[in-house]
Amino acid sequence: MTSLEGLPSPVPPGGTIGILGGGQLGRMLALAAAKLGLKSHIYSDHAQAPAFDVAAAHTHARYDDEAALAAFARCADAITYEFENLPSDAVALLAKQRPTHPAASALALTQDRFTEKTFLARLGLATTPFARADTAGDARAALAQIGAPAILKTRRLGYDGKGQARIASPQDIDAAFESFRHAPAILEGFVDFAFECSVIAARGADGAFAAYDPPENLHENHILRRSQVPARLAPAQCAEAQAATKRIAEALDYVGVLAVEFFVDGNGTLLVNEIAPRVHNSGHWTLEACVVSQFEQHIRAVAGWPLGDPSRHCDAEMVNIIGAEAGDWEALARGSGALHLYGKTEIRPGRKMGHVTCLSPSRGAPPARARRN
Amino acid sequence: MTSLEGLPSPVPPGGTIGILGGGQLGRMLALAAAKLGLKSHIYSDHAQAPAFDVAAAHTHARYDDEAALAAFARCADAITYEFENLPSDAVALLAKQRPTHPAASALALTQDRFTEKTFLARLGLATTPFARADTAGDARAALAQIGAPAILKTRRLGYDGKGQARIASPQDIDAAFESFRHAPAILEGFVDFAFECSVIAARGADGAFAAYDPPENLHENHILRRSQVPARLAPAQCAEAQAATKRIAEALDYVGVLAVEFFVDGNGTLLVNEIAPRVHNSGHWTLEACVVSQFEQHIRAVAGWPLGDPSRHCDAEMVNIIGAEAGDWEALARGSGALHLYGKTEIRPGRKMGHVTCLSPSRGAPPARARRN
Repeated sequence: MTSLEGLPSPVPPGGTIGILGGGQLGRMLALAAAKLGLKSHIYSDHAQAPAFDVAAAHTHARYDDEAALAAFARCADAITYEFENLPSDAVALLAKQRPTHPAASALALTQDRFTEKTFLARLGLATTPFARADTAGDARAALAQIGAPAILKTRRLGYDGKGQARIASPQDIDAAFESFRHAPAILEGFVDFAFECSVIAARGADGAFAAYDPPENLHENHILRRSQVPARLAPAQCAEAQAATKRIAEALDYVGVLAVEFFVDGNGTLLVNEIAPRVHNSGHWTLEACVVSQFEQHIRAVAGWPLGDPSRHCDAEMVNIIGAEAGDWEALARGSGALHLYGKTEIRPGRKMGHVTCLSPSRGAPPARARRN
Repeated sequence: MTSLEGLPSPVPPGGTIGILGGGQLGRMLALAAAKLGLKSHIYSDHAQAPAFDVAAAHTHARYDDEAALAAFARCADAITYEFENLPSDAVALLAKQRPTHPAASALALTQDRFTEKTFLARLGLATTPFARADTAGDARAALAQIGAPAILKTRRLGYDGKGQARIASPQDIDAAFESFRHAPAILEGFVDFAFECSVIAARGADGAFAAYDPPENLHENHILRRSQVPARLAPAQCAEAQAATKRIAEALDYVGVLAVEFFVDGNGTLLVNEIAPRVHNSGHWTLEACVVSQFEQHIRAVAGWPLGDPSRHCDAEMVNIIGAEAGDWEALARGSGALHLYGKTEIRPGRKMGHVTCLSPSRGAPPARARRN
């Protein structure tokens, strides 16, 4: 047990994992914790968070309620979170009371697109061209440097295409900033985009690293529609994406599951798009195609348990059920895929309501060996 | 939808399944309900039932508390149970308020070994030789008929080897009845036992039937130790076991998952040993090896949903974690199998604490096609 010297003891079965955030990711984390004999305590600012229904306990409070956060920490043996739009101060506060992963520093870094891209560039990883655009003036200078068309994104709090504007010429910049309410932004150049893939990986408290095979991801209306493994990647590309993810995880001294999204350009070059410091929609297929899912893997890392084997025994395709599509649940239940519904009471356009994963026999060996070291 | 005429509407996502019993089976049923977007309400007479930790609501009350049962029924859209040592009156009472499956009549039949065996014999299914032994006098007559050695079992409430006595000669009978506190019994002849297998199958509210491939089961100290698919059965034997299960389910007008245990004798003859009107320990491997597990299948049946596909994509071996073995959870977590721990707070000898399922690629086609019609 030499490599575990100085580490906090793992949370034993019967212990409680505190989870900030009560959406589908928190819900699937709670289900994974239950599989390991662990209890969950969900903290959410929504009164009817879907994860409340599968947890031993829950707290309904704002994420900046320091008294509620402190009481929550006292009930938990280890703490994590399911989404990145969380005050990193809250995470830092919790970390003073209980082992809390991923660290507030990793969260803060990935919450700011410019800080994140700068970190990636310093690691020597290829990204799309980018420049700081905190003001409209910055953005005009950035556009001159990067060239049109480009895409302007708020540095913070964007998701599913919100807080983004296409910039075809300098004339578009003011309107974009108007729509952002003058939030600081980053300008990113377009690339010769072929497709997107992602690596879902985990790093344990002991520094162990385990990456799943990269899925290929298809978006519609800026929302993930479908993820498929294996992706159209050569074994060397899979290995490169997994190695980049490992470098990121190590540089952040990361503990837990993270997802790294890559653009693959027309030349087959991998460009890091973004880091999600959490379990990820493009990893939902691991629930059926792997013995240890991304959710269980994250709970293992956060609880100080050994990581599980990330290899997959099947090919898989995951399709999201979005908005009104959830009304067809009876037809979906008749299908041949594994059906997951998230227990959301209200159907809204663009809302992720569930997903379906279809398995098929593995086409020979996976394109790259799952990495575990 | 012709075949569904006259059936109650299915419980839609967001609805609540009431589950009597809060052990590991209730817990895994609740997790399966959550996967489908359904809530669970667990009713148990234990204050710290493991299933409470994963349910949206729970009731802690005795199974004969009519007021508590009525209040429980009002909270649920459909009701089921996880174990058979439940007053069938309670089930009948609940059925007056809400769709409740399996029916009280199926429960009552399987609660009495003599009634159950008589039912099987009337269906024309082979069983071990048996005779009524309500008193020591009956048992002596039965032994003269069946021959020694034989096994005397209480008609009701036995499990995991409790309430059983080996009868080598008539002299053993009085001591056996003494140990049973003179409960009525059944005498069963020994067979030329080769191995045990079981069929886990579901029947839907619409009469649809779906059987999993039969696992082969190994017991130690009267407790299931290991289940393995495929079993050492020829395709015709698998089909025969599944067909017998279908006859049983239809004769009982059964809705839900049931398990039928078979002895296979030295000639390869299948003898029905017993019926469990519930999800079953020998079906736990379906969680990983099938797209729809026995737990989800039961929830689907009880909720009036279409049954799922019972075919398996892998071979599998499930091993129970019993008693003090659960103390080795860290070593188990390092293993290559899928680890399930049940969240039981107290380790007791012989107590089922969890299980591990190992998958391996399917050796060609499964021995018999999963039956679905």
